[in-house]
Amino acid sequence: MPDKARIALDAMGGDHGASVVLPGADISLTRHPDIEFLLYGDRAVVEPLLNGLPRLKAHSKLVHTEVSIRMDDKPSQALRSGRHKSSMWLAIDAVKKGEADIVVSGGNTGALMAMSRFNLKMIEGIERPALAGLWPTLKGESVVLDVGASIGADEQHLINLAAMGSAMARVLFDIERPTVGLLNIGVEEVKGLEQVREAGRLLREGHFPHFDYVGFVEGDDIGKGMVDVVVTEGFAGNIALKTAEGTARQFAQYLRDAMNRTWAARLGYLLSRQAFRTLRDKMDPRKSNGGVFLGLNGIVIKSHGGADAEGFASAVDMGYDMFRYELLAKIGESMARDLQASATMRVASGATS
Amino acid sequence: MPDKARIALDAMGGDHGASVVLPGADISLTRHPDIEFLLYGDRAVVEPLLNGLPRLKAHSKLVHTEVSIRMDDKPSQALRSGRHKSSMWLAIDAVKKGEADIVVSGGNTGALMAMSRFNLKMIEGIERPALAGLWPTLKGESVVLDVGASIGADEQHLINLAAMGSAMARVLFDIERPTVGLLNIGVEEVKGLEQVREAGRLLREGHFPHFDYVGFVEGDDIGKGMVDVVVTEGFAGNIALKTAEGTARQFAQYLRDAMNRTWAARLGYLLSRQAFRTLRDKMDPRKSNGGVFLGLNGIVIKSHGGADAEGFASAVDMGYDMFRYELLAKIGESMARDLQASATMRVASGATS
Repeated sequence: MPDKARIALDAMGGDHGASVVLPGADISLTRHPDIEFLLYGDRAVVEPLLNGLPRLKAHSKLVHTEVSIRMDDKPSQALRSGRHKSSMWLAIDAVKKGEADIVVSGGNTGALMAMSRFNLKMIEGIERPALAGLWPTLKGESVVLDVGASIGADEQHLINLAAMGSAMARVLFDIERPTVGLLNIGVEEVKGLEQVREAGRLLREGHFPHFDYVGFVEGDDIGKGMVDVVVTEGFAGNIALKTAEGTARQFAQYLRDAMNRTWAARLGYLLSRQAFRTLRDKMDPRKSNGGVFLGLNGIVIKSHGGADAEGFASAVDMGYDMFRYELLAKIGESMARDLQASATMRVASGATS
Repeated sequence: MPDKARIALDAMGGDHGASVVLPGADISLTRHPDIEFLLYGDRAVVEPLLNGLPRLKAHSKLVHTEVSIRMDDKPSQALRSGRHKSSMWLAIDAVKKGEADIVVSGGNTGALMAMSRFNLKMIEGIERPALAGLWPTLKGESVVLDVGASIGADEQHLINLAAMGSAMARVLFDIERPTVGLLNIGVEEVKGLEQVREAGRLLREGHFPHFDYVGFVEGDDIGKGMVDVVVTEGFAGNIALKTAEGTARQFAQYLRDAMNRTWAARLGYLLSRQAFRTLRDKMDPRKSNGGVFLGLNGIVIKSHGGADAEGFASAVDMGYDMFRYELLAKIGESMARDLQASATMRVASGATS
């Protein structure tokens, strides 16, 4: 194991930029004192904050750049204006050059994807990166992908998502053959988008050594933990993810309101407050912040743009684990095998699309 | 106001068929004693149940048919085997013939849509029906459509959904100009599916007398009640709806578990149980069961296939209100005006797609 985990941070990324990134990195450092940070950002902004965080400062090297990607830049625009010089690009480039082991950014998802893809390149056989998230379920956690890296997916891309997501689940959850479901609007074979039905057919008929395809799942099956890996294209996946976050917040608000309505309820709340704390921890979206771009030759972690310092720290923690447990190497290796199986199966079935 | 509300029921529809439909109708009858039911189904199944519900029996007429549509029939198959004779077709046909004011079915969504469309025909200017649901929010309720009637939507269909959904909201919520948002994976204009962005442009630039377009909304904005009407195509809409239902159930389960963990928590629960009851009522998906097919020359209510009797009763209640408050006439009228505005705007902007 290398002495240090070297983590490159886009210090300007996210809705709140360095004011969240730096305190977040500092929190993660208390849990992983073996991290060395490479901070990319505007010295005028970063340095004063860093001076207030002496522990982080002792574990960081700041690389100055005045250029940063805005949250509403188009990916093409970001590439044009930010290549070779923006904080996001430089952080990714550190991974490319082997100066960092992973990169974490809370910046514009489209730009992060475009830059990562342009710079790090895709693993052979994968055309587009996918963003995989960990979804808390009644049984534990599931990997859900794609939650917003790209829009639309043909059947081959959906199969690639199944291979990548199951590789991630295999390592993270320590399961030999994770179960995989395709997100659809009904569990019957006749329902849904044509490419989803076709992917279902190919997954059903194929022999994938590393996962167990169980069929279509619906939106309400995700939270049940019905499968270890939920596969969907990025538009529907992102809407599902954000709708779940919104519903959790809505429920929490209803609960607060209900508990404030009468004196008996308030007293009950006091008696149950440890239980409520457990519940809050369980539903806290900050605890599962951090998505992984899968399919790239490098580990790129996307933190939620609106995350606070605790949330950003979770994203850093996730990246740390991805590096320490050598997820990338394992994912690449087992993906190659799954894709081989997929290709063999496709040739055998005469599929050409 | 006519003396009676005449409601046609597909007595065989839904996962549990007549064993849910009949008790559900009976519950709704206690709230609306002016309903007359027309029950379509297999006498051998329906009659014994009806004999056990004397109040319902006194308000019902049973029309026998042995044919029913299965939950997994393809729409084309359902039309082929069930036209002119299935319980679903006959119930819809009662509306067509003017023998019933509305129809309620818990059957196969695709078949119900296909049969309704084939028999009742579309309102002029609308090509496909949409399924609109009521979504509980922190501010009250919002209309969300399409939650699964059809897959995919071009920009014109999305604009039609905005017009239909806002007409429904205008009447249900008693607001002059409901706010409308387009569901997307980001609020920036550059994000999302091309047809969603194009619909956004047309809605922004157009002048729609009956609603106020506010822009893109994301999944977590639905539960906040950010807009009165959320517009999306049916695949993403169905996934959003079911994901929200699943998350609500997940949260409820976490809460039950947390409240059972210690004696203090259990005592607290007892003291707060009225608050919990309020909460449960608020989150009860049965209370908002029932979607409306919009765009048809008739009122067709789709009850959730897995609904229980209480849930089915909510769907009947919704249909009752739709008839009593003459929603259909009002929707058709204001839609015609919105569509006219839309057409004028499209001509002016030279849009041709």
